[in-house]
Amino acid sequence: MRYLLTISYLGTAYHGWQVQPNGVTVQEKVQDALEKIYKFRPNVTGCSRTDAGVHALEFCCHFDAEYIIREDKIVSALNSYLPDDISANECKIVDSNFHARYSAKGKNYIYKIYNSTTPNPFVFNRSWHVSRRLDVDKMNCFLSSLVGTHDFVAFSSSGRTVEDTVRTITECKAEKKGDFIEISVTADGFLYNMVRIIVGTAVNVSDNKISEDSALDIIRSKDRNMAGITAPPYGLFLNKVIY
Amino acid sequence: MRYLLTISYLGTAYHGWQVQPNGVTVQEKVQDALEKIYKFRPNVTGCSRTDAGVHALEFCCHFDAEYIIREDKIVSALNSYLPDDISANECKIVDSNFHARYSAKGKNYIYKIYNSTTPNPFVFNRSWHVSRRLDVDKMNCFLSSLVGTHDFVAFSSSGRTVEDTVRTITECKAEKKGDFIEISVTADGFLYNMVRIIVGTAVNVSDNKISEDSALDIIRSKDRNMAGITAPPYGLFLNKVIY
Repeated sequence: MRYLLTISYLGTAYHGWQVQPNGVTVQEKVQDALEKIYKFRPNVTGCSRTDAGVHALEFCCHFDAEYIIREDKIVSALNSYLPDDISANECKIVDSNFHARYSAKGKNYIYKIYNSTTPNPFVFNRSWHVSRRLDVDKMNCFLSSLVGTHDFVAFSSSGRTVEDTVRTITECKAEKKGDFIEISVTADGFLYNMVRIIVGTAVNVSDNKISEDSALDIIRSKDRNMAGITAPPYGLFLNKVIY
Repeated sequence: MRYLLTISYLGTAYHGWQVQPNGVTVQEKVQDALEKIYKFRPNVTGCSRTDAGVHALEFCCHFDAEYIIREDKIVSALNSYLPDDISANECKIVDSNFHARYSAKGKNYIYKIYNSTTPNPFVFNRSWHVSRRLDVDKMNCFLSSLVGTHDFVAFSSSGRTVEDTVRTITECKAEKKGDFIEISVTADGFLYNMVRIIVGTAVNVSDNKISEDSALDIIRSKDRNMAGITAPPYGLFLNKVIY
């Protein structure tokens, strides 16, 4: 029986999703909790690897388990075993061909910038505090030009290698919400650090360090150095996985 | 020169406002930061003592300092020295008779209940998670009866003694905001644990453990045992000090 499990997590305390030798990860915590329920340790496959410090409002993963436990029972049992910074939201039986990563048609990320002269202790580690006034119109001029199917290799870090670096962005916009600027990016897939480099570049555009109409030039250059800074991880939220 | 300083803080890591022998307090951190700026250690007087784990969206305090530093310079200097869970928002020169505590005409507290079947890692330690469905109408029926001038000794813990336990509540209501229930209480002053006992009793009313029309009976009893439970500290926010 294959289960699709939806969780949320505050990434601050974790070295990202994927189990690794040094540092505690979300995958490890979810597997620990499932092991307490099932008395064996299911391998849990995530929809993506999130970086250290990145959060998830909705992260999807799947696991296989032989005997059947009612779906709502799994959720409440998981919530009693999971730490307070990870919650199980939903669990449902899916087709045995379903794959949390490969079945995903796309994902939506939200990046939160707290744009205020003074810091805010309630959003520390849950947003990027930028104290100088940002120009949302200028940022949107740049961001909207990224929509489409392009080779986004210039907007990726070299840390992880994939062969195909062409992705389709269907939405890329910044919105002012009170003291926050929320940048929403939806695509069929993302390269390593892609959203954080897009956000960092948009901030550089607002600061007049990069031209607001340079998006296609950066894409065509295929050169990471043409894009801007990498925004810090703690403002990034995986918001939605589209199946 | 007397300064009125407005700060915000996430109370999770602190043993409340007031300096005490065991445990780190917000007052201590603010005095540490001021000492770095002024090269002497001003005594900072707060508008109230908040309990361990209680937060402040707007906490007011005053201090005296001999030589003049521009008010906006104090704020930015403080924010560079304060830890990330405390922020300085505003600083202004006030009359030498001003007193952060005694000049206050009233205060407004907000208590946040997260009322959802599953927990939410993003509001953990910033709200009280109640998973059973609460009845906001019933809570409001009880809460509205508390408005007025009464001896609220039944709604106070015995930990701190004051002689006069009569207070005037001018606003006391619960409001549903998405998955949250926010209880707002405004009064000319508060007894020890008063808001937390009011909130705990309102939850007991919703759970049919206490009658929704019992508010005046509890007040008249002057008996703490007639009121309900004390809600946990981490849902409580000092929201506004009225001068």
